[in-house]
Parts: sequence; structure tokens; C-alpha cells
Amino acid sequence: MISIFDQDLPRVEANFAPMSPLTFIERTAEVYPDRLAVVHGSLRQTWEDTYARCRRLASALQRAGIGKNDTVAVVLPNTPPMVEAHFGAPMAGAVLNAINTRLDAETIAFMLDHGEAKAVIVDPEFSLSVKKALALRKATTPLLVIDVEDGLFTGGSERIGSVTYEDLLAGGDAEFKWDLPGDEWDAIALNYTSGTTGNPKGVVYHHRGAALNAISNVLEWDMPKHAVYLWTLPMFHCNGWCFPWTVAARAGVNVCLRRVEAQAIFDAMRDHRVTHYCGAPIVHGMLVNAPAAMKEGVPAGVKAMVAGAAPPASMIEGMEQMGFDLTHVYGLTEVYGPATVCAKHEAWDALDIGERARLNARQGVRYHLERDVRVLDPETMQPVAQDGETMGEIMFKGNIAMKGYLKNPTATAEAFKGGWFHSGDLAVQYADGYFKIKDRSKDIIISGGENISSIEVEDVLYRHPAVLAAAVVAKADAKWGETPCAFLELKAGAEVTAEDIVAHCKQHLAGFKVPRTVVFGELPKTSTGKIQKFELRARAGSAQAIDI
Amino acid sequence: MISIFDQDLPRVEANFAPMSPLTFIERTAEVYPDRLAVVHGSLRQTWEDTYARCRRLASALQRAGIGKNDTVAVVLPNTPPMVEAHFGAPMAGAVLNAINTRLDAETIAFMLDHGEAKAVIVDPEFSLSVKKALALRKATTPLLVIDVEDGLFTGGSERIGSVTYEDLLAGGDAEFKWDLPGDEWDAIALNYTSGTTGNPKGVVYHHRGAALNAISNVLEWDMPKHAVYLWTLPMFHCNGWCFPWTVAARAGVNVCLRRVEAQAIFDAMRDHRVTHYCGAPIVHGMLVNAPAAMKEGVPAGVKAMVAGAAPPASMIEGMEQMGFDLTHVYGLTEVYGPATVCAKHEAWDALDIGERARLNARQGVRYHLERDVRVLDPETMQPVAQDGETMGEIMFKGNIAMKGYLKNPTATAEAFKGGWFHSGDLAVQYADGYFKIKDRSKDIIISGGENISSIEVEDVLYRHPAVLAAAVVAKADAKWGETPCAFLELKAGAEVTAEDIVAHCKQHLAGFKVPRTVVFGELPKTSTGKIQKFELRARAGSAQAIDI
Repeated sequence: MISIFDQDLPRVEANFAPMSPLTFIERTAEVYPDRLAVVHGSLRQTWEDTYARCRRLASALQRAGIGKNDTVAVVLPNTPPMVEAHFGAPMAGAVLNAINTRLDAETIAFMLDHGEAKAVIVDPEFSLSVKKALALRKATTPLLVIDVEDGLFTGGSERIGSVTYEDLLAGGDAEFKWDLPGDEWDAIALNYTSGTTGNPKGVVYHHRGAALNAISNVLEWDMPKHAVYLWTLPMFHCNGWCFPWTVAARAGVNVCLRRVEAQAIFDAMRDHRVTHYCGAPIVHGMLVNAPAAMKEGVPAGVKAMVAGAAPPASMIEGMEQMGFDLTHVYGLTEVYGPATVCAKHEAWDALDIGERARLNARQGVRYHLERDVRVLDPETMQPVAQDGETMGEIMFKGNIAMKGYLKNPTATAEAFKGGWFHSGDLAVQYADGYFKIKDRSKDIIISGGENISSIEVEDVLYRHPAVLAAAVVAKADAKWGETPCAFLELKAGAEVTAEDIVAHCKQHLAGFKVPRTVVFGELPKTSTGKIQKFELRARAGSAQAIDI
Repeated sequence: MISIFDQDLPRVEANFAPMSPLTFIERTAEVYPDRLAVVHGSLRQTWEDTYARCRRLASALQRAGIGKNDTVAVVLPNTPPMVEAHFGAPMAGAVLNAINTRLDAETIAFMLDHGEAKAVIVDPEFSLSVKKALALRKATTPLLVIDVEDGLFTGGSERIGSVTYEDLLAGGDAEFKWDLPGDEWDAIALNYTSGTTGNPKGVVYHHRGAALNAISNVLEWDMPKHAVYLWTLPMFHCNGWCFPWTVAARAGVNVCLRRVEAQAIFDAMRDHRVTHYCGAPIVHGMLVNAPAAMKEGVPAGVKAMVAGAAPPASMIEGMEQMGFDLTHVYGLTEVYGPATVCAKHEAWDALDIGERARLNARQGVRYHLERDVRVLDPETMQPVAQDGETMGEIMFKGNIAMKGYLKNPTATAEAFKGGWFHSGDLAVQYADGYFKIKDRSKDIIISGGENISSIEVEDVLYRHPAVLAAAVVAKADAKWGETPCAFLELKAGAEVTAEDIVAHCKQHLAGFKVPRTVVFGELPKTSTGKIQKFELRARAGSAQAIDI
């Protein structure tokens, strides 16, 4: 029998609408038309103007034949067109593919092909690499290339497209009547993982997840209306962790920034009374270590988010000295950027810096509107003991998880098996429910039945004065199954033997964790600077073990 | 051809979960277990304890055979069991029906019957009216009656149920594994409209809308984590406008309050450092008009929401003098309480109080996560001119609109016709997009083709020194179609003739708006104090017109 609460009470147009971050800019432009939306050099653009420009972009894309589920790629730094593309492309029904500007032409060509881009918007700084990518592209389908012009870019460049961004917008309709997606599950963005193994995977975001993650950002930061957000985090990283949509929801200000440099950041903070910014530890470290004179007059109470690695004690201390408030978040491309937060507690304020750093270095707890995040035993899918010692894999579940990998059902099914998104990060969970990453699951070494964290071994190697860079991988071993194999890049002029390294490790590590193999030489890295462990694993097979 | 963005990218358990405010308390209890959740007299209850009690309630209800889509009615003031019922009932899969405690036994009996309640939780203050209602109930199905005991209630009462609330919880499981709704469209609450005409209608809320309205509350108020919320607004009004769920999302504090009295409110504000509260104008007016001594030491910057009527200038001024920050919101039961807000602008601060009052008296713009609110011509369904003069009907669209009316498909279809929820409120819209209510559509009088706002005529009548209460309705007229008919309740000892009243109206109103009929006597009112215009419309037919 159908319940009375399910009878004659269907979803209709009046009581149901797809969730989408596109509604955020629409409301803000209506309610706060005259408020500042975008700052870039001397440019000051209101929300009314910004919304009109986004509608022009959407309209112009549609007039160019680009619509529902077509991919619009962009190779842009944090400039106004990048903000606008986050609304204009999906308002046309298209899917935004923000490409990492640091990538080489081959990788960009791969993405344009794999994502089946119909248009690409290019900043002058990257016109040469995109030009090469266009030549390398395999697809023969039409690709509309759009040149952004930016007076703040002073280097050399060349026009590679058929139209400039401003001319394109001039041909669009500022009153364009865009549609919400037919389904909130429709794609809004495509973000390639940087891929330390094989080809990058295309992570597809949907409107529902983008809206909910954007709101979770507000909830975590208690981010007020009209917050002033400085764009230190690249918008090509997980759509700037969804902050273009968050800032629109808050009727805030996007302070654009072509380059992440301490002077420019402090200047922007002073000039525009910045209240919020995000970045990897290197960004915050740069600010902490800047000369005192550079910091003068910077607003107090700036809120910062750090992701990518745990903030060390020195950084937390330095941020406190600047009067900044640091929040540690963690996530992956597959979960729209951060989907956990090391939520702080008032009681922590009274602790000493070492203890505060230890607590804040944890990856924390699920993000506000994410359904669940747990550390599970990947075999049994049961939660690990909350003892701070038992390792498991961090797994996510809920609306802040990708639609899946584009054109890769095998990888999608693998990532989602057992009803959870498998992060590949190994962690322990503490009594308070907070968890801390110990290693990547691929990077764990299992030797004689004991798990060895490659991160732990690398940390010890980095403490040796001769070591510039270190990577530890598993090497197959007839007796132990696997043993740790260390690859080391030495500092200029440093001289050290494998035996010295082993002796150093023995001082700091349990015997079974000490590398049985040490290889010196330059480490292979991706274009984004990540060490390619898959390459090292291949090399480890042929490396000569030493007897310890 | 299926798009690449729709291929092999389905909703699965890992990347999709129904939205529900139940996840809010779960996360808060996990992340902030020791923080204060509920204050009631000397009771201090943490979020961990509160969550455990909610799970006990859910478990106990299920053990009593109450589960999916069963109605759990409550007749409770703003006490801890009322907070807990907002989570415990839906965690059992049930639908919470919070009944207005001021209602008479007949109406309560109607609701228990119509909503098909399987359980009712009763505060001692209302045991007698519920006892009468139980006797009047037509249904013969089992009804579990649960008696709340509350040391803060000092009046007389009697046990009418088979179990006390605390005994029920003691029999429940604090570790109960509740399920999210199978579908976020599932019902979470049933709220009867107070109904000035005919029987009350049962408005059904779903989990999706409850979650989104709760978050919209956070967004509008910039409500920070750990806000301290004082329960001046009855939780039986649109589930306290969804604030039980909002406070859980913020890991805030519910400061309970059995009675809305100035001394108790100011005491609670001081004792618990209250940051937020809501109420009808009468609540704020009571605080503004309280003796100065009573206000001493009240925290500065308390944020208040007012709904139900526009705040007059004197109230805005009084609130400012107390250092309170007042936000005007508007909505109806059908849209989860407020679904528009008179969003304020910094530029307004510089205006004089008259102008500020005029701007803030408007019902404003759509709420954050509501899809759209417009003033439409109900005939053409086109937006009215934004000229502050052309009248139309306020209509809502989106996720913050009810599932529909329970067991009333005709009324549901009528309310949602044309793809919008018809509020029945007539308004004008200004150039800035803000709208202002002029009248209820049922209350508009059309005389000789001219619309007459009954509110406008009533406002004039209230200005006559002899008038205590006034209501104006349409009276059928052979010549004019309709004419205004005034019903007046006079102040004690006042003497005035119909001719005096008409003369007074002629001074202030256009001739066609002047009542042709004036009737003296007590006005019929509902149990909640609303004037029953449907009754007056019936009486108007036989009232004798005067010649003007």
C-alpha cells in the first residue's frame, strides 16, 4: 500500500529544481547588483556586470554551436575570464575543463583529445604551449580557439585563435536566458588528475556536488556575506576547490592574481582588505618567511585554508604571529578538492605549539555536506580501531564525490567498489574520530608481513644533510616479499655512500624499515613536480641490494 | 547519442546520498560531542548526549511498531523533547507532526485523525486539551500516548498516556542504527496551516527541502558555528522555521523556553550569551517596550529575525537602541516558513529611520537556496512591472516548497498551478527587485473594476480613536460587483456611529474605497487569534448598507 505521504505528492516544477551553483550568481546579481565581484589590476567589476558577461559568454558559445555536454577547455591563470568561465560555460550547458597551465604541450593535447573539447580559451602566457598542443592534437573535429588579452601580462605571446575573448563576449547576449541543467546530476566540470601513473584520468563533477561543496566551504569557514577572497589557489585545481561558486554564493569579491608572489599577495591583502585565501603549504610558507616590512599593514584575522600536506608547527606558529587563522583541509580531485577538515576546538588554543601542530596536522573529519568519511580496512570494509595506530584507507561517501572518470568505467567501478570512494591514502584514526594520513596505499611496502610507510622512511632520509630529494618504493624480494628501496638525489657537492645512508637510517628506524637498496641519481618527476614513483618501482627491480 | 558525460557515470552509493538534516546532528555529535546542545532550566545536555537521546527515541518508536511514513504527533512547547523529536521521529522513518499547542481539542482531534497519527508526545501543560482530543478522535487505530514530565512546568496536569517520555527513551537503543530516507523526497514533517477557512490543510515537508531551508538560514544570518539560539519562536510553527536542524548544523546551543515573556528572555540572553532568536513582531515589540532595568547587561549584537508582519519604524528604532540587528523575513507554512528575506544593504545605514523602515518593511527577495520568487500577474503568469505600484501575486518556485497538501490533490494542484506556488499574497515589486505585500488575494475587494486593498482600508479604520479591531471584506453588490464592508470592535466605552466612521474614511481614502457598510460587534477569531474573514464574508451578505 502506498503511504499517504507518497500519494499525489510528486516533484513538480513549483516544488523541485535541480541544485546548481549557477543559481548563486543569478541571485547575487539580482540582490547585490552594485557590489564588487572581480578585481584585477585596475579593473573593478560588479556582480551585475559579471553576470552579464557570463551570460554573454554562454550565449556566444551557443551561437558558436557549443551546447549541452560539450567540453569547453580553458588554459588560464586566475584572471577574470577564469572566474567567468566557471559560470558562462555551464550556462551554455557545457562542461568546463580547466587545464593546469603548467602542463607540457603533449599532456594538454591529450586532454583536449580525451575530453573532446569543442572550444579552448587561452591566456597569452600559455599561447605557445597551447599552440604546440593544437599541433599535437589527434582529433580532427572543429575546435574554437579563443585568445584572452590581458594588459597585466607583459611577456611575449602570439594570437593563436580565431577570436579574442572580448570580441566573443561582444557578440553574445547579456540577457541570454540560460537553462538550469535538466538534472542536477549533469556534468558541470571535467578535471584531470595529474596522474603519477599512466595517462591522466578525467574526473567529472556534477552540478549537485559543486553546489554542495561550495556551501560546505561557507559552513566550515563561517564565511560571511561579502567576504574578500584572494585567488592564490589556482582555479584549475579542482575548480579552485569550488570557490568561484562559493564567492558568488556569498556576494563576495574575487581578487584575481596572475602570479603567486609574496609582495603581490601582501599588496592585494592591504589594498582590497582580503579576508580569505587558500593554498598549498608552500604558499603559506612563502608568506610566513617574507620580510617583516612586506607584512606591514596587512589586515588582521585573515582566514587561510591549507591543503596538499599537513601544516608543520613552524608554519602554524608563523601564521599565528601574522594574526592569520589557518584551517587544514584534505581531499582529492575526485571529491571536489577538500572533503575533510581538521575542525578546530577552542580547547586546543590552550595547548603548546607542538601539541597544536600535532592536532592540526591531522586530516580531520568529513566536510559538512559530505555523507561520510571513514578509515576502513580495504579488505573487510570495516572501520579500523580508533587507536591512532591501526592503518586503513580513507574512504568517502556522499554527494561530494565525482560522477566518475570520463570514458573509464573500469577505473570508476574500481574507485567506487564496496559503496565508498577509495582515496588510496592510508591513515590511522584517533579516539576523537580525527584521522591522519600515513601513506598512499600504492606506496606502502609490505615486508615480512609488516607494513612499512614509505613516508616515514623518506622523512628519515630527508634528515640526512646530504639529501636533496628522497623517494622510497617497494622492491620485490624472494624472502621478505618486499623490501624498501631508496632513491636519493644529493645536494650539490655532497658526497655520501649507501652505507652511510643505511647507518643513518638504522639510528632512526626499526631494522625492518631500513632500505636494503640505495640508488643515487636524479629523480624522475611529472610536469607538476611530483616524483614518479611508478618509474622508480620499475627501476627498483634491477637495482642492486646491499647487505644490511 | 548519449553524451560521454552521461555514459557509465551513474549515481551509486559512493557518490550519492539523500540530502537530509538528520546528517547534521550525526556530524555534530561526532565532531563536537562535548559541546553544549540543549539548555533547559538547570539542564545542560551535550551534542553527544542529545544525539544518543534522539537515537533512543527513534529506536523506541520502532520497537513500538512505528516506522516509515508513520505520523508522530507532538503537542509540546519549546522544551528538550521538542528538539529531540525533530531528529528522533524522522530517524525512525516517521513524519513529525508538531501541533500548535494553542489549539482547541476539536482541532487537535481533527489533526490526529487526518494525519493518521500513530503516536503523540504530550507536554503536561496540554494534557487536558489532548485528553479531550483523544476522546473526540474518530479513528480507532492504536495511538501511543507519551507523557512528558517537566519540572519547569508548575501548573496542574494529569498523566494521559501509557508511558512517560523518559521511560520510553530508557527502553530505546542509544546506538540505534537509523537509516537515511530512501529518497530525499520522503516526508520529514507534517504541519497544518492554521486555516482561516474550513479545515486546516496538512502541509508535507520533505528531507531535501528541510535541509536546504536550514542551510539558507545559516547563509542569510552568516550564522557562525556554535551560535546560541534562543527558542522564542514556537517549534510548532513550520518546525521553528527549520531552526532545530539549523542549530544542529552549526553545532550551536538550543536555549529552550517554555513561555515567551520579557523577563525570561532577557535572563536567558544574559545567562547563556544568546546570539540569535526569531519571532513575530509582538515578541520583538515586547522586548523593545520592556523596562530599561530589565535590559541591563544583555549581550550586544544579538541577531533577530522577524516574520509575520513588517516591522514598523518604532520597532526597528527600538531594536537598534538595544544594539540588536533585525532581519525581516517572509514566508508561509507551504514554503517551510521564510523563503524570502529583506536582505539589507550597507547604503541603507546612512538613511533616516523613516526611510530605513520603509525599505526594511518590504518582504524582499528570494531566500538563498530557493530557486525563484516573483510577483506575477496570476492571469498571465508574467512578472509585473517593477514600479512599486502594479499589483501581482507573490509566487515561489524551487526546493523550498512543500511536497504538497496531505490527502488533498485538488488543493495541491491548485497551489502549484502554472509551475509556481501561489502564496495568495498580493504585492508590488520595486525597481531593485524587492517586493512588498499589499494584501491577501482572498481579501482584495474589486469594486467597479477597481482593486481595493482591505489592508489599506483597515489601516485607516485603525487610526480612528474609537476602533480596537477592524476587518474589511467584500460584500456583493448588484451595481459595483463588490463593495467594502467594515466590521469594527470598539474600545471599551467608545461611542461612535457608522456615519462617523464613514466620514473618517472619506478624509483618508478615495471615495470608491470607503466602506458602504459598517457593522459593530466582537470579531470572530481563530484559536491563534487570527480574525476569521470567511465568517465575516458570510455575515457581510446580510449586513445593511448605508448610503454614502
